[in-house]
Amino acid sequence: MSFHSAAWSKDPQDTLRVGPDFDLSAVDPDSTPGFNGGKKAGRAELAAVSEDLSDLQERLFAAGTAGSTDSVLLVLQAMDTAGKGGIVRHVVGAVDPQGVQLASFKKPTPEELSHDFLWRIRKEVPAPGKIGVFDRSHYEDVLIGRVRSLAPAEEIERRYGAIVDFERELVDSGTRVIKVMLQISPETQKERLTERLNRPDKYWKFNPSDIDERAFWPAYQDAYQRALLRTSTADAPWFVVPANNKWYARVAVQHLLVDALSGINPQWPAATYDVEAEKLRLAASTV
Amino acid sequence: MSFHSAAWSKDPQDTLRVGPDFDLSAVDPDSTPGFNGGKKAGRAELAAVSEDLSDLQERLFAAGTAGSTDSVLLVLQAMDTAGKGGIVRHVVGAVDPQGVQLASFKKPTPEELSHDFLWRIRKEVPAPGKIGVFDRSHYEDVLIGRVRSLAPAEEIERRYGAIVDFERELVDSGTRVIKVMLQISPETQKERLTERLNRPDKYWKFNPSDIDERAFWPAYQDAYQRALLRTSTADAPWFVVPANNKWYARVAVQHLLVDALSGINPQWPAATYDVEAEKLRLAASTV
Repeated sequence: MSFHSAAWSKDPQDTLRVGPDFDLSAVDPDSTPGFNGGKKAGRAELAAVSEDLSDLQERLFAAGTAGSTDSVLLVLQAMDTAGKGGIVRHVVGAVDPQGVQLASFKKPTPEELSHDFLWRIRKEVPAPGKIGVFDRSHYEDVLIGRVRSLAPAEEIERRYGAIVDFERELVDSGTRVIKVMLQISPETQKERLTERLNRPDKYWKFNPSDIDERAFWPAYQDAYQRALLRTSTADAPWFVVPANNKWYARVAVQHLLVDALSGINPQWPAATYDVEAEKLRLAASTV
Repeated sequence: MSFHSAAWSKDPQDTLRVGPDFDLSAVDPDSTPGFNGGKKAGRAELAAVSEDLSDLQERLFAAGTAGSTDSVLLVLQAMDTAGKGGIVRHVVGAVDPQGVQLASFKKPTPEELSHDFLWRIRKEVPAPGKIGVFDRSHYEDVLIGRVRSLAPAEEIERRYGAIVDFERELVDSGTRVIKVMLQISPETQKERLTERLNRPDKYWKFNPSDIDERAFWPAYQDAYQRALLRTSTADAPWFVVPANNKWYARVAVQHLLVDALSGINPQWPAATYDVEAEKLRLAASTV
């Protein structure tokens, strides 16, 4: 299966990819690069392409049952309220839950802290045939880790290299790694946090620490800029997705996922049994 | 939230529940008890009620983040091709993947076999706030276990009691347990297996052992009848859902799930912080 969509004039694979000259501060969070149309067209695109994604996911899963080692890992990183949850719900949620392996990484536990930072991550890498999703990830260890000085500078430095090595391992073992940073503006974050404080059904999504971290916005942008440049490789590239428009972020990430799956081009497995003999056996079976 | 739907003239909670006089052989797999309408109405109902289910799931999840111990466990059992996968895809798949904890139990590994049969099950019980789904379950150990004599008769007998105790523990700790057997006819199974053998995109779903197990149909029905009677309790009831019509099985299971969640009636958590103070702090935050 190859994937083309008239909705895109430029491929997000190209426009959103982090290359060696990437400058995070030049990304306009309001922009919708390469997409032809606005919110309405975006929603229609999301619904239509969900069918393609779902079909590809089922093929990937089927191939996984037959010995293929292919899998996909979508890494999601962003400032609070940028819409990671919406990507999980509206993009990934369109496919069969059996084919999805979702891991949300919170503040590390004491046990997790007693190990190398990749210890808890390795336990959650997707099995063959699965689409893995990391809601936050090992990148927290070079983001909040750096901004809040949770580790010595030399250790943060070491981690960039360890991440590149780890992701190369993943790719070598059959996992397509797609890393997405959703980029919102501080003004948008303020609006979204305000909404959480204005709606009792959203109170549970707010934590006072969200405002504490918000105060470190420039430091986070700096930490992202460094991490993106140090770890965006040909095999495991970063994509920075403008996310002030939720609809855009969703179709863009969906497109990246479909591209990755189309690149795998998973095939329905051949029968491992004699189809004609089984047909005869079934026809003869009486209950 | 209370749940009512004009689509149902009788509540599946009542019509499908396994009571002390239950007789599996009296269930007509073609029937659609209590539902007003056919396939088209069923599909419309599934789509409409997905919104309610999704809303309830989010409330359950939110409450779980705030210390509630409530959760739901949906146990799915059936003969091959009865449609367990379709329930996961089309009923459970309508809610946020973050709120779902899915476990598929295959043939036990040597390590699993070296432990009590509930060992691997206990590791997969849903966390607070989650909707757990068991695609096959501990019941295999009294179904195929009995039919294929994988354990001595006294051990099978012991397991019925162990299951009742285990599920009572779950209920006592805040989990609503809904157990569903999808009942198809052997003719329908034959049609569905035939389809798998006629379509190369379905070959991977077929296994020659499916025909072997099919030959034991009456023994499986007997094992189900015994297991259902021995383990359908007030706290953790069984429901037998006629499943020759996939659309019916889906709306019926969806209804049972919505009923369970409505019974919990999960509430949006109160703020654990001073809302007005946080609003001021946010308004003052500059980036």
